[in-house]
Amino acid sequence: MKKFAVILCGCGHLDGSEIHESTMTLLAIDKHGHSYTVFAPDEEQYDVINHLTKEPMDEKRNMLVEAARIARGEISPLSDFNPDKFDALIFPGGFGAAKNLFTYAQKGVKMQVRDDINAIIKQMHQKGKPIGALCISPVLLAKVLQDIVITVGTDPATAADVQKLGARHINTQQTEVIADKQNMVFSTPCYMLPARLSDIEESAYNLIGTILENL
Amino acid sequence: MKKFAVILCGCGHLDGSEIHESTMTLLAIDKHGHSYTVFAPDEEQYDVINHLTKEPMDEKRNMLVEAARIARGEISPLSDFNPDKFDALIFPGGFGAAKNLFTYAQKGVKMQVRDDINAIIKQMHQKGKPIGALCISPVLLAKVLQDIVITVGTDPATAADVQKLGARHINTQQTEVIADKQNMVFSTPCYMLPARLSDIEESAYNLIGTILENL
Repeated sequence: MKKFAVILCGCGHLDGSEIHESTMTLLAIDKHGHSYTVFAPDEEQYDVINHLTKEPMDEKRNMLVEAARIARGEISPLSDFNPDKFDALIFPGGFGAAKNLFTYAQKGVKMQVRDDINAIIKQMHQKGKPIGALCISPVLLAKVLQDIVITVGTDPATAADVQKLGARHINTQQTEVIADKQNMVFSTPCYMLPARLSDIEESAYNLIGTILENL
Repeated sequence: MKKFAVILCGCGHLDGSEIHESTMTLLAIDKHGHSYTVFAPDEEQYDVINHLTKEPMDEKRNMLVEAARIARGEISPLSDFNPDKFDALIFPGGFGAAKNLFTYAQKGVKMQVRDDINAIIKQMHQKGKPIGALCISPVLLAKVLQDIVITVGTDPATAADVQKLGARHINTQQTEVIADKQNMVFSTPCYMLPARLSDIEESAYNLIGTILENL
């Protein structure tokens, strides 16, 4: 049984991890017969957004505490992550991921990446272990690892930013996975394209399946 | 294409709707090829629980605003629900459902049911339209409709409470569905029993499938 680490950062696509992508990632790992451990940084979210009105709320929420809603409390602080204990690392998406784990939402290609997130990506990469990313999160891998091949779907502006970061972008349709086997980096567009919930399920299943074929 | 109304009440199993059951319900409707509309009451939750520590938080959150996280903003206030526009009504579970929609968590068999929830259940039942419930939510249907047959898994105390409410309880194992065809009431235990995420997916798929067979 392979061990997957799944990195979340809150609960909700506008200020945390996208709930469907996160849940379908955990489902995909379970359906493929493997195990998962969920992590999130134990720090305040960048912001809190009312998901009905899309307006900011005058509140503070913690990434670990809110992500615990998705994980039903079975979650660990990201500081506990040990790359030797896992076979693969997965980043579900969400606009909130691009605010909290990296700052692409705020700063575009001038983004910064959290030190702990930067470190775990580099550690897994140096060990030749696979890293999977859904939706907008492949941009994080492009920023940290640079000379890799990823997809974020078909959005020309985001694809151009990926090229600026030193990575190569390949356009994909819904449920397709781009496998950069040389770098062990795997990506799928999910909600970067129009999607039904069943598309997200299939995308996550394909992503985890492709990683397992290359493990 | 059949139209399902899915009733949520927040986001997270301890103070709102169970996220996996809610997401898997929407996925099941989509995979069976039908459509869903998500509703929640536009009112304050009973409480806010830290899902990491399980302790209450000194915060107030709104059921509709938080449920919008699960629905990606595509959600309507429960006051907009019109029973003539839907073919079936579904209640995902969560301990929070049993605090917000009905008060079984606080008061046991002396529970009260929200007036709007009581009304929509009775309206759908009087029209002979199917109502599905996951996890603890079948207890809500037992309270409102009384002389029905449901399951909440195998927990003896909850089963005894169901009998006290005037309904009949049938023990089930994970992923099984009890179909009370006479009353058009359908239930499945989900997280009322030990469960993997793939069990929740299968349970929701079976529940929606059984409803469709009887529509």
